[in-house]
Amino acid sequence: MNDAQQKVFAALDHFRIELPSWGFANTGTRFGKFIQPGAATNIAEKFADAGMVNKLTGVAPTVALHVLWDLPKGEGSVNEIRQLEQQHGIRSGSINPNLFQDQVYKFGSLCNPDPSVRKQATDHMIESVQIAKALGSRDISLWLSDGANYPGTQSIQRRIGWLTEALAATHAELATDQRLLVEYKPFEPAFYFTDLADWGMAYTMAKQAGPQAVVLVDTGHHALGTNIEQIVAWLLHLGALGGFHFNDRKFADDDLTLGSIDPYQVFRIFHEIHAHTASGGRSDIAYMIDQSHNLKGKMEAMVQTVATAQELYARAALVDQAKLSELQDACALVEAEELFRNAFFTDVRPLVQAWRSSKGLPADPLVALKESGYVDTISRERAAKNASSGGSYA
Amino acid sequence: MNDAQQKVFAALDHFRIELPSWGFANTGTRFGKFIQPGAATNIAEKFADAGMVNKLTGVAPTVALHVLWDLPKGEGSVNEIRQLEQQHGIRSGSINPNLFQDQVYKFGSLCNPDPSVRKQATDHMIESVQIAKALGSRDISLWLSDGANYPGTQSIQRRIGWLTEALAATHAELATDQRLLVEYKPFEPAFYFTDLADWGMAYTMAKQAGPQAVVLVDTGHHALGTNIEQIVAWLLHLGALGGFHFNDRKFADDDLTLGSIDPYQVFRIFHEIHAHTASGGRSDIAYMIDQSHNLKGKMEAMVQTVATAQELYARAALVDQAKLSELQDACALVEAEELFRNAFFTDVRPLVQAWRSSKGLPADPLVALKESGYVDTISRERAAKNASSGGSYA
Amino acid sequence: MNDAQQKVFAALDHFRIELPSWGFANTGTRFGKFIQPGAATNIAEKFADAGMVNKLTGVAPTVALHVLWDLPKGEGSVNEIRQLEQQHGIRSGSINPNLFQDQVYKFGSLCNPDPSVRKQATDHMIESVQIAKALGSRDISLWLSDGANYPGTQSIQRRIGWLTEALAATHAELATDQRLLVEYKPFEPAFYFTDLADWGMAYTMAKQAGPQAVVLVDTGHHALGTNIEQIVAWLLHLGALGGFHFNDRKFADDDLTLGSIDPYQVFRIFHEIHAHTASGGRSDIAYMIDQSHNLKGKMEAMVQTVATAQELYARAALVDQAKLSELQDACALVEAEELFRNAFFTDVRPLVQAWRSSKGLPADPLVALKESGYVDTISRERAAKNASSGGSYA
Amino acid sequence: MNDAQQKVFAALDHFRIELPSWGFANTGTRFGKFIQPGAATNIAEKFADAGMVNKLTGVAPTVALHVLWDLPKGEGSVNEIRQLEQQHGIRSGSINPNLFQDQVYKFGSLCNPDPSVRKQATDHMIESVQIAKALGSRDISLWLSDGANYPGTQSIQRRIGWLTEALAATHAELATDQRLLVEYKPFEPAFYFTDLADWGMAYTMAKQAGPQAVVLVDTGHHALGTNIEQIVAWLLHLGALGGFHFNDRKFADDDLTLGSIDPYQVFRIFHEIHAHTASGGRSDIAYMIDQSHNLKGKMEAMVQTVATAQELYARAALVDQAKLSELQDACALVEAEELFRNAFFTDVRPLVQAWRSSKGLPADPLVALKESGYVDTISRERAAKNASSGGSYA
Repeated sequence: MNDAQQKVFAALDHFRIELPSWGFANTGTRFGKFIQPGAATNIAEKFADAGMVNKLTGVAPTVALHVLWDLPKGEGSVNEIRQLEQQHGIRSGSINPNLFQDQVYKFGSLCNPDPSVRKQATDHMIESVQIAKALGSRDISLWLSDGANYPGTQSIQRRIGWLTEALAATHAELATDQRLLVEYKPFEPAFYFTDLADWGMAYTMAKQAGPQAVVLVDTGHHALGTNIEQIVAWLLHLGALGGFHFNDRKFADDDLTLGSIDPYQVFRIFHEIHAHTASGGRSDIAYMIDQSHNLKGKMEAMVQTVATAQELYARAALVDQAKLSELQDACALVEAEELFRNAFFTDVRPLVQAWRSSKGLPADPLVALKESGYVDTISRERAAKNASSGGSYA
Repeated sequence: MNDAQQKVFAALDHFRIELPSWGFANTGTRFGKFIQPGAATNIAEKFADAGMVNKLTGVAPTVALHVLWDLPKGEGSVNEIRQLEQQHGIRSGSINPNLFQDQVYKFGSLCNPDPSVRKQATDHMIESVQIAKALGSRDISLWLSDGANYPGTQSIQRRIGWLTEALAATHAELATDQRLLVEYKPFEPAFYFTDLADWGMAYTMAKQAGPQAVVLVDTGHHALGTNIEQIVAWLLHLGALGGFHFNDRKFADDDLTLGSIDPYQVFRIFHEIHAHTASGGRSDIAYMIDQSHNLKGKMEAMVQTVATAQELYARAALVDQAKLSELQDACALVEAEELFRNAFFTDVRPLVQAWRSSKGLPADPLVALKESGYVDTISRERAAKNASSGGSYA
Repeated sequence: MNDAQQKVFAALDHFRIELPSWGFANTGTRFGKFIQPGAATNIAEKFADAGMVNKLTGVAPTVALHVLWDLPKGEGSVNEIRQLEQQHGIRSGSINPNLFQDQVYKFGSLCNPDPSVRKQATDHMIESVQIAKALGSRDISLWLSDGANYPGTQSIQRRIGWLTEALAATHAELATDQRLLVEYKPFEPAFYFTDLADWGMAYTMAKQAGPQAVVLVDTGHHALGTNIEQIVAWLLHLGALGGFHFNDRKFADDDLTLGSIDPYQVFRIFHEIHAHTASGGRSDIAYMIDQSHNLKGKMEAMVQTVATAQELYARAALVDQAKLSELQDACALVEAEELFRNAFFTDVRPLVQAWRSSKGLPADPLVALKESGYVDTISRERAAKNASSGGSYA
Repeated sequence: MNDAQQKVFAALDHFRIELPSWGFANTGTRFGKFIQPGAATNIAEKFADAGMVNKLTGVAPTVALHVLWDLPKGEGSVNEIRQLEQQHGIRSGSINPNLFQDQVYKFGSLCNPDPSVRKQATDHMIESVQIAKALGSRDISLWLSDGANYPGTQSIQRRIGWLTEALAATHAELATDQRLLVEYKPFEPAFYFTDLADWGMAYTMAKQAGPQAVVLVDTGHHALGTNIEQIVAWLLHLGALGGFHFNDRKFADDDLTLGSIDPYQVFRIFHEIHAHTASGGRSDIAYMIDQSHNLKGKMEAMVQTVATAQELYARAALVDQAKLSELQDACALVEAEELFRNAFFTDVRPLVQAWRSSKGLPADPLVALKESGYVDTISRERAAKNASSGGSYA
């Protein structure tokens, strides 16, 4: 086994990705929803689909759950989930509260000026912690959609205060081995300001909430031109990088498949993590997919994403960290850059396939998916249910 | 009547704004819909609401119609519309085809690789022209949502060809006094490319379609940093500015109320139009609102938008065009800028109110709306229907 | 004195703005420099010009100094500055180190991989602190131009460590009443990453440096779409807003005059400060101009900027904070927004002029500047010196 | 020779890149210039350097000339250039007028309100055409830096008219085989609007100038989020794509080396060209580098850029156009995308090296440059001249 193969195999051996349960269901844009006949229509089907992705790839052993959609009975749903875990060979991953769907959240949830709404939202956070405990899930993953659409209509400053209280109350419920992941997003569904708009807000808010609160980086949630790998580097430096939501975007949506628009950026993000490890740094990072596939087949898109993440992670693993550090500190720019991007431009796909074969996995999971007939089967089985769900928002 | 009053009155005398029927109905973001009890649930209610806005403001005599939603029977709906026009003292305005909602449009409508889908879409365009003729509407307003989400998945070049054919076929159906307004949008719902992404594409496509095709500028549909007033100036120069869709945005959505984020930009856009007229240019511009109010009350937001448009149009009318030209051509930058923005910073609201009073209109239409009790009434009347429409997209 | 007048007068009574010495000298873009004959060519002329702006406006009693350009002899220059202060009735303000001009800084200053360069840069920081002490200046204002142009060429993470050391060393030299202002900038002159790229980096770095380090917000230094007033709100909440560099930009430059592109944004920033005060918050904010006028006359642009800042600060002071809070917390969106922007659209210029007259100042400082003949005089006196400075960078 | 090799060899056989003379000289940012001792200080050294790049790569047979800097005697410089061409085995390429450096251009050149300045600028354009004729150069490449920094200070509309006249006058002087390439740029050095800001403006202006005027796409000159390959597709469709200026950028500068930030985007641009050819389209595209290397060694950066362009052009050549069209038109999204990006992720470097060897060229031109000792030699020879040029703009 040569050096490149060793590096790739070692990297892939410890690289795991969490699948989002909502990535298997029909979703859409604000203009409508294009229905896929094979989309999952309930939690059992989501577990089945996620289990199939894990079976094909071997590196997706957990599925993120969305409290409202996947655990409608709250903690009462836990037993059903337990059975599904057994049945499909995939465990529950992060627990995702829902603070955007109830009509009372029109003007915010944890940041709503109305104390009773804030209480409802905080209670939902705490219930999410309880569910996570019951399921043995470590991470509660908070995406806060709160914000405002118009200048002057809400108090940015008072809302900071309210959020501080809510997250402190949530943090107080965490078991000692649990974490609160705090996500940020510059806009949408709020269009003038989002209460947690950038990593600085998420980080300082997490710090105020308590030591087990860390930051979640969604690769699609940044202003155009932002250097995301630099943010990753700072969060690693601060010991506050809790995980990722993987996806991509060209302009301002964040639900495209990982690396589909800018694969070099994903490589550079992974590089920061490898570089941190190489210099003796420690980190504990949850890699999660957060995508919603409107046009691509949901199973295909998910398998493709897992494979893409592996390939880009493997490419980044090829960077000779010691040599790169030397060239960087000598300010040998062109040599450093060539070394760096030679790793990116090296075709690791044969090595990734070899790694898969060495684990008894299909060499090409997309091909294996096709050959399995799985999509055809679920399309037949679920078509009627999906057809009745309608596709229009009008 | 002093000079400022004369200018403002003259400007307002000829300034009319079209209301969008869809701005009165419940809509949402991709994350859900917050239901307003008073939202319009059918075309009769939309006409009632639009009629009320026109009654309060006196400058919104037409309502844009959306073929699929407002004219479900196609030309067969015309008689019903005629009656509503009479009843509410407001006429039909631009006719808006729908090329994004049918499941067959998943991969495009006029640009779909499948010829049968393109035919269906083209037929819908032609039907829209026929409806417009039947209603006596001049403008067919095309927003094309076609595009692709991922590199390599669609042929940009072949789609240009298909679109050229479809618009030529549509243009051939226009009566001599009709126009085809071609809108552009950089992204959403397509996220990698939109087939008509910028004004250059809309303009060259319109030119190929025929002489009655012109460009529609939606103020929210531009890359960040774009100088929209410059595009307006070029379209005026090219004789191809057909109209506007008014709204605003902070980052990447386009449904905020006009001028709510950047009122100075709206002023500058209006200035280009006044400057064009002052230098002897001719134009024929349809001013239309295209907003969907998720959080603000729909009636309030619409009245507010009309009033804002009037105020900013009036401020721009205060610019002394002759003096400004002189200072510009002398490159007296600070003097020119001070003259220019003094118009913006002049408080025209008393003059606008005086103009309204002179027309027998309420001086403050927002106050008049409140005093009318209209929103309370429709909220009571329509609450049950709206409640049953559900609010969640999950 | 009515309520509006009282609010405006009270606001203007405590509002002071610092002028940048470099704003009076000839500068340019990377494509060249257009020479103004009246531009200041030395520190004496800069003090004269700044003194004139202060004489005309009465609210610009300090001038920011740039160590390398204004204090070429380091502390040895202090006596000369003292004399100029006396002569022109204007004091030294913030002290600005220069870490970008020396050829050794090609690959960075405080973040340079070479320890000897880092030492040189740190020594310059410490010397700047000493100069500030000697001049009685409170604030040392750090703009760090360090960064890299290409992926892989520099270690983001090691550079964070080096910067931490350098700022700690600088902070250790501060007198107890001094402050270190830490500025951030997303790009330029470094084009791939800038070591302090956003407020989160500046804030966490300041925290690590020590309690007297706070953040400096340059209004032009943000990714497009960023909500700057929200950052201001967070920094106020965190007690870490040290000051502003005022300017504006349309796309990506930051040297346009304040409010020239988006005056409503400036109003919203000032509103956050007024709101913080109204709710009992305390802050200590240095308002500073950082502009470089390539095309506008330098004296005119500076006077115009001071007047613009006053007017927008006064408009923001008109917001009825108690009423606004009530409407915000009742989620009365349209009412809250109308109250908010009515303040913006109120013409405060007569009140600002009345305030000036009440202080014995010219009602319109731009007119007064013109009538003074000052620009003609300095243009005559300095023309020869400026002509020899050349204009081309080729 | 297998299929991939044939495709790569065929692609590289006809791919040529023009070097910019100004890419070998010292340049900087507005904050200063870091001096490279080996930078070219005159036209002879620029030809020497360009000749060396061509010798190493074999695909850079022409050098773009900048009238003011490289042909100070105008047509009188032609003989000297002729000799340099002979001496260094490299020909003159596009001729680039300079309309930004003279002090009279402070408020514009071809768009200046002063007719005498417009005449001077137009005369310079016509002289550039004459020089091009004398040198046997086909393309005159216009980058227009004109614009304004502040709203209201210049008339956008009158300036369009003036520019139309100037380009018509220039076009009238073209020989029948010459072309006028019209470039666009959204901002810088003008910061509020640039007279030719986007491809729509460049295209419609070129059309008005005459049939030999076409558009030049500078890859760095677009608003963030713009889909550049789509613009390329439209220009190909319109028969108006004259050429490229190659470079890259992360945020808003355009002088980074090609593909250094987003190599996949460059691949996609090349794909549109290959797709156009594959479908029977014809084009005549000048590939030119326009970079200014502030930090990287100038020779290294130029060789690296040529090699990068070749590699990405070769990757794009691997796309199976027939198969891709089939998958696209079947809307087989994931299959189409996988086929597409498999070409991108294929490691073509061995094939590119084999092609070079087959032409008697060094397999790795960067290594060959290093081994040649050329940079050391010119650094010794030119160090003194460069040292005296100073580095600071203060």
